[in-house]
Amino acid sequence: MPQLDLTATSVDLTRAVCDIPSVSDDESHLADLIEAAIRPQAHLDVIRDGDVIVARTHTGASQRVVIAGHIDTVPINDNVPTRDIEIDGEPYLWGRGTVDMKSGLAVQLKLAAELVAPRIDVTWMWYDHEEVDAARNGLNRLSQSRPDLFAGDFAILGEASNGQVEGGCNGTLRAVVRTHGVRAHSARAWIGENAIHAAAPVLARLAEYRPRDVAVAGLVYREGLNAVRISGGVAGNVIPDLCEVEVNYRFAPSSSVDQAADHVRNVFAGFEVEITDAAAGARPGLDAPLAREFLAAVGAEPRPKYGWTDVARFSALGIPAVNYGPGDPQLAHHDEERVPIAQIEAVERGLRSWLSPS
Amino acid sequence: MPQLDLTATSVDLTRAVCDIPSVSDDESHLADLIEAAIRPQAHLDVIRDGDVIVARTHTGASQRVVIAGHIDTVPINDNVPTRDIEIDGEPYLWGRGTVDMKSGLAVQLKLAAELVAPRIDVTWMWYDHEEVDAARNGLNRLSQSRPDLFAGDFAILGEASNGQVEGGCNGTLRAVVRTHGVRAHSARAWIGENAIHAAAPVLARLAEYRPRDVAVAGLVYREGLNAVRISGGVAGNVIPDLCEVEVNYRFAPSSSVDQAADHVRNVFAGFEVEITDAAAGARPGLDAPLAREFLAAVGAEPRPKYGWTDVARFSALGIPAVNYGPGDPQLAHHDEERVPIAQIEAVERGLRSWLSPS
Repeated sequence: MPQLDLTATSVDLTRAVCDIPSVSDDESHLADLIEAAIRPQAHLDVIRDGDVIVARTHTGASQRVVIAGHIDTVPINDNVPTRDIEIDGEPYLWGRGTVDMKSGLAVQLKLAAELVAPRIDVTWMWYDHEEVDAARNGLNRLSQSRPDLFAGDFAILGEASNGQVEGGCNGTLRAVVRTHGVRAHSARAWIGENAIHAAAPVLARLAEYRPRDVAVAGLVYREGLNAVRISGGVAGNVIPDLCEVEVNYRFAPSSSVDQAADHVRNVFAGFEVEITDAAAGARPGLDAPLAREFLAAVGAEPRPKYGWTDVARFSALGIPAVNYGPGDPQLAHHDEERVPIAQIEAVERGLRSWLSPS
Repeated sequence: MPQLDLTATSVDLTRAVCDIPSVSDDESHLADLIEAAIRPQAHLDVIRDGDVIVARTHTGASQRVVIAGHIDTVPINDNVPTRDIEIDGEPYLWGRGTVDMKSGLAVQLKLAAELVAPRIDVTWMWYDHEEVDAARNGLNRLSQSRPDLFAGDFAILGEASNGQVEGGCNGTLRAVVRTHGVRAHSARAWIGENAIHAAAPVLARLAEYRPRDVAVAGLVYREGLNAVRISGGVAGNVIPDLCEVEVNYRFAPSSSVDQAADHVRNVFAGFEVEITDAAAGARPGLDAPLAREFLAAVGAEPRPKYGWTDVARFSALGIPAVNYGPGDPQLAHHDEERVPIAQIEAVERGLRSWLSPS
């Protein structure tokens, strides 16, 4: 079994962890390597729970930050092993996981080994199954079985944020809007009622909908309401009796799931609406004292996070949380996934400067 | 092998042919029985071609009528053997094929044997594979391989018409109307373009569409334009880049297929429209002298036929054609398919009175 060398540069370490495939459901080998590299660090108290590894400092500091990252990736598509490439003169590391989020993971692993006496106590958390359904998410599982491990004043998730600090995240809700009709032979359509025609106002309301921009604790969250699926029809000669429009509402963290559901029901008033899935957003939490210190140390302008991330799990536990990691989130899951080398180094510097004793 | 007794009543003969399953692709046994019963009739010249049986009188009359019926049914669904039932005091024969169209077939078989010297020469045609795609339709096949057998001045198809005369039929055209967009993550919808939202005007035009009533040779054909299928969507968190609406246009026989296609393209002007399937309608042809005699003899008020039927094949060969058969077409293919006994007898009387020497 190859060893992970935590004294290597964070860029070399990114290359190493990317070249060890760990697609969701197949993370155990990488988890084993991480455990083997972290367990000997005398300043860390290490817990392995399934494929989650928790490593805590106990310096006696008055405050604690949880710094977390997932170790799985979406499926590889001929983009492993990594390659060094250059775009417009700038060096990049190319390949699956470079953005989402093994560069962030590499920075965390390196600093976990290096910072033997951080200014603030740190709970490092590396977890499995982030890229699949929430029921299998390692962080979710552990937050239920071992909430004690999540004790902290602030949390940082290493998800790609272009090296900026992205606060909180929008919530997400899915609903199915249904229209009903009466089947009939299409040669005698007047005997039936066309459920697809009845969905015309549903699409019209979606097309006319103007999403809100909502300011929450100084950040402006851009909402969205979109059809993500439509289906209806029985056969080529039958008037359809059912049409379903699945919509996805991304809502600012100032709204609760119940408020978001009410909003969707209002938009589609007069139609059958079934809420099928929902997850609350996370308030940016940037007014917490540790958050303010962190922002000052890394010198980044905070931005809102639009996509739902696991910061919402910390938020649900009452812990302010932000996203901070190298890589452009729009290249996550992309076949041309790639991270600027400079962003890996910048995030490493940012975290180190904040956590190092002054 | 049981014999078909063509001297039985048309009701008993309906019962007999319904109790011999002949779902499309499995008609040969019934075709064999029909051939065995018809072949000995000295006044008939019989041709077997695949599972099509053609039986012609040669009385030397100056005019000829083609009287046709299909021998297959849609799949049986626990509704064979037939049963005698009563609804509101009226006797019915219940079971698969009683409406579509073995009652009409039975009347034709009985009269083919009985009318040894009809007033007008008759070409009887019983054919296979009407309930499946046109490429396998026995009448369609024979009209291409033996158009000579279709010589005639008038044609009657025994499809269910409630014992009334239904002239011609509407044409039918299917088209797919497509909208395009740009995929994006639904958390950042503003980067993409939603193809489902773009379909809002397509559904609005369908919902607002008022179909025409078109008078053709004295009959009023009711048109219809309907969505029969809609689909779109990639995943629950992706802005969809394609939406397809399949529409079915039923158009009066005064319009050609090209005119119907132009109409559909006009309705959806500004959208991508692909015509996927089309079949011309059939003009009622009730102004033909034989048709007028026939209407007078059977004493029926002619009505328009809305559904597309094989009368259109005769129409395409230049032969005026009508539908005339027992049973309510709305019960065709229905699990509770059933025919009023009185309608079988009425259609038998109607055809006999018209064809018998005066």
